[in-house]
Amino acid sequence: MAAVRVALLGCGVVGSEVARALAPGSAHAAELAARAGAELELVGIAVRDADRPRPEGVDRSLLTTDAAALVRRADVVVELVGGIDPVRGLLLDALAAGASVVTANKALLAEHGPQLHAAADAAGVDLFFEAAVAGAVPIIGPLRESLAGDRVERVLGIVNGTTNYVLDAMDTSGADLADAVARAQELGYAEADPTADVEGFDAAAKAAILATLAFHVPVAAADVHREGITAVTAADVAAAADAGSVIKLLAICERITAGDGTEGVRARVHPALLSRDHPLAGVRGAYNAVFVQAAAAGELMFYGQGAGGLATSSAVLGDLVTVARRRVAGGRGPRVLDHADLPVLGMDGALTRYQVRLEVADRPGVLAAIAQVFADHGVSIETVRQSAGRPGTSDGGARSAALVVVTHTAPDADLAATVAALGDLDAVAAVASVLRVEGD
Amino acid sequence: MAAVRVALLGCGVVGSEVARALAPGSAHAAELAARAGAELELVGIAVRDADRPRPEGVDRSLLTTDAAALVRRADVVVELVGGIDPVRGLLLDALAAGASVVTANKALLAEHGPQLHAAADAAGVDLFFEAAVAGAVPIIGPLRESLAGDRVERVLGIVNGTTNYVLDAMDTSGADLADAVARAQELGYAEADPTADVEGFDAAAKAAILATLAFHVPVAAADVHREGITAVTAADVAAAADAGSVIKLLAICERITAGDGTEGVRARVHPALLSRDHPLAGVRGAYNAVFVQAAAAGELMFYGQGAGGLATSSAVLGDLVTVARRRVAGGRGPRVLDHADLPVLGMDGALTRYQVRLEVADRPGVLAAIAQVFADHGVSIETVRQSAGRPGTSDGGARSAALVVVTHTAPDADLAATVAALGDLDAVAAVASVLRVEGD
Repeated sequence: MAAVRVALLGCGVVGSEVARALAPGSAHAAELAARAGAELELVGIAVRDADRPRPEGVDRSLLTTDAAALVRRADVVVELVGGIDPVRGLLLDALAAGASVVTANKALLAEHGPQLHAAADAAGVDLFFEAAVAGAVPIIGPLRESLAGDRVERVLGIVNGTTNYVLDAMDTSGADLADAVARAQELGYAEADPTADVEGFDAAAKAAILATLAFHVPVAAADVHREGITAVTAADVAAAADAGSVIKLLAICERITAGDGTEGVRARVHPALLSRDHPLAGVRGAYNAVFVQAAAAGELMFYGQGAGGLATSSAVLGDLVTVARRRVAGGRGPRVLDHADLPVLGMDGALTRYQVRLEVADRPGVLAAIAQVFADHGVSIETVRQSAGRPGTSDGGARSAALVVVTHTAPDADLAATVAALGDLDAVAAVASVLRVEGD
Repeated sequence: MAAVRVALLGCGVVGSEVARALAPGSAHAAELAARAGAELELVGIAVRDADRPRPEGVDRSLLTTDAAALVRRADVVVELVGGIDPVRGLLLDALAAGASVVTANKALLAEHGPQLHAAADAAGVDLFFEAAVAGAVPIIGPLRESLAGDRVERVLGIVNGTTNYVLDAMDTSGADLADAVARAQELGYAEADPTADVEGFDAAAKAAILATLAFHVPVAAADVHREGITAVTAADVAAAADAGSVIKLLAICERITAGDGTEGVRARVHPALLSRDHPLAGVRGAYNAVFVQAAAAGELMFYGQGAGGLATSSAVLGDLVTVARRRVAGGRGPRVLDHADLPVLGMDGALTRYQVRLEVADRPGVLAAIAQVFADHGVSIETVRQSAGRPGTSDGGARSAALVVVTHTAPDADLAATVAALGDLDAVAAVASVLRVEGD
C-alpha cells in the first residue's frame, strides 16, 4: 500500500509532538501505520522561520517556509498554525486539490466552517477537527458519528481551561479575579494577554463549532451571545458557595421549540451559577468537559484535558489515522451540514434564570418594592435571601442590607429590563451582580 | 441514491425503538436519511413469534420468523437478539454476503469477536457495536477512532448498571446486598435471575471488548479474571465509607510492561475500593462511566446511561447511520485488530493493593504477629486502622478487635498467599473481608 503523504503546517507545541510521532522507525509511527493501513509519511513542515531552534525529534530537513508548495504535495494536510489568513486560502486550495484536512483551528472553523465543509464535500474529501474543541476530549467524533442517530437537545460545555482554572482558583482560595489570572499566567494556563480567554472569545468559537455539529445548522462565532468572566468578583464566588453552587464559564447550545411550535437553535457563552450536584461542577482546574442532552441517549458527559501540546496531539493524530484510513479504504463519515433548516436565534427570547445581588436600604417596605418590580416585568421569584443589615456609614448614611434574588426562568430580555428597573429604585443602593443560573 | 436496506433481528425494548425510528415518513427517519445520505429502508424484523403483541409504531407486516432469508435481503443487519446461537451463524452469513452488521451482542463479541472481525475484514464491510458496552455512552467509537493515534494504557469502567445501582444503594442506605438486589429487581434494574450481573459475567464480556479495542489484541471473556459482588457486605460498604471510599464493580484493562521490558495486557473484573475523590466514585445509580488513561491524551472520562431501550437505541442508530453512510460513500474505519503482538496475562502477576479486614484477639503482640505475616510474603503495609475492642462473648470468649490493613501494591498472588496465612494465625479470629483498592 502506498504511503499517505502528510503535510504539517505549524511546528509549535502540538506540531512538534505530531512530527515526533511520525518520525520514521519509531514504535509510535509503526502503530499509526498499522491502524491506518498504510505508512504515514511526513513530507514537510511549513514554518515561518526555518532557522529557529526546534524541539528534539523534529527533522529539520523537513522544514520549509513555502506552505503553498508543500500543501500541493500532500494527501492529508494537518494545520496547526491557527488564525484566519493565510490558513484559510491554503486549506481551501488543499481541499480543492483533493487533500483531506485535519485542523485544530477553532477560529477558522467558527468563522468559515460552512465554506470549508462545502469545499470538502465538493472534493469528496475529509475535514476533521477533533482538537479544535476541548483538546484531547473526544467530543467532535461522538457528536458527528456516535450521536448521528439521535437528536441533540442541549450541549453544556466547560471548553476553556484558562477561565475554568481562574474560576476554580477563586472558588478554592477566595482570590479575586486579577490575582487568579496572574497565578494562571505564572503557571502557563493563561497567556500574557488573556483577552481571548477571559472575554469568552475562545469559548464562543468552540460553542459555534459544537452548535453546528449538534444541530446540523451553520452557526458562526458572531451568532453566539458572548459574555466573559471579567465582571465576576470574589464576592460573587463566595455568594455562590453559600448557595451550594459554583460559577463556571459555560458554552451553551440549545435546540428550542417556541410556544407556537417553531424551532430554532441558540448558542451562548457566559458565566453561570451551577449547583455543586451537577456533573460539570466537579470539573476542576484547567480540565474541560462537555455535557450533552439527547432525546434518546439522555445525559452524557465527556471529560478530559482541554489543552497542552501532548494531549492535543492525541486528538490530531486520532483524526490523522481516521482520515488516512479513509484515503486507503475510501469513504467518508456522516454529513455535518445535512439539512436542518432551523433559524439561529438571539439572546432576547432565551429563557434563563438570574441571580441578582442587591445592596438595599435596610428599612420596611423595601422587599415589597423590589418584588413589585419583578412582578411588573412578569418575572417570578424563586428565592430571596437577605443577609444581616450593615450599620450606616460614619458620615450618617443609612443602614444597608444585601439581598440575593433568584428567579424562575423568564425571557432574558425581561430579566435584563427588570435589573435595569431595579437600578432606578430609590431603595436600591447598587446592583452588586447579575449572574445566570444553569443546570436544572 | 438507492435506499440502504436494513434488516432488524429482534424486536424487544431496543429493537422496537429502532423500528419506530425507521418508520417511513417520520421526522426521525428523515433526519437519519439526511445524515446517511440515503433512505434507511427497514425491510423486515425477525422475531421468534410473529403473533405476539408488539409495541405501538412497529409495522407488523415487517415481522418474519425466517431470519436467514431476511438477512440475505439486507445491506445492513442490526442484531438485537443476544446470545451466541443462532445469531453467530446468521451474522457470519450476513458478513460473508457483503452486508454490514450493527450489534449490541456483548456475549457474542466477547467470545467470537476475532472471528467476526476477520469475516468483516475479508468481506470489506463494517462490524459496529457501540451499544454492546455502556449503552448510550460513546466509548467504542472514541476508542476505535478518536484514540487511534494514541496509546491507551488503562481503562477503568463501571459498565454494569445493575451492580452499580446495588452498590450505590448499599452505600446510600446501609442496606445489605440481598435487600439492595431485591430493590433493584422491583425497579427493573435487575433481572429475576441476577447471576449474569452480580457475578460479573456481563462486566467481564464488556471488559474483553474494551481490552480488544484499547490494545488491538484479541481478548476473550474467558481471559478476564472475574469476581462478582456477592461477597460484598454492608459492613464492607460502611468500612469503605469510613475510609473515604466507595466500593464499585470495576472492569479494568491494563497494558503492562514487566521489569524485563516485556509487555502484555490484562483484563479483570472485581469489586474494589475507590477514593471518593476519583471521578468514577461519583457515578450513581444505574449510570455507567468509562475512565481511560492514554499516553498522550492523559485522563479521559465518558459518562451516561448504560441501559434502557431508548438510550441504547441511540447507540444502535448512531452506528446504523455511520455504517449506512459508508455503504453510500464507501470506506471503512481504523482497524480494530491490526497488529499488536501482546500476550494476554493472568491475574497472578498483577500488581494490586488489598484492604484486609480482620477480627483479631485484643491482646498485646497481635499486630506484630500480623505485620510479620505481611513481611514474610514481601507485602508492604500502607496503613493499619484498629477499631475499639469489643467485649468477649458471654460464654467467656476473649475480647476481640477489628483491624483494617491497607497494603501498598504487590503481586496479586503474594497478597492472596498473605491472606491465606493470616487465616491460619491463632490471633486472627476471622478474615472478615478482602477487597482490592484501585484508582491511584
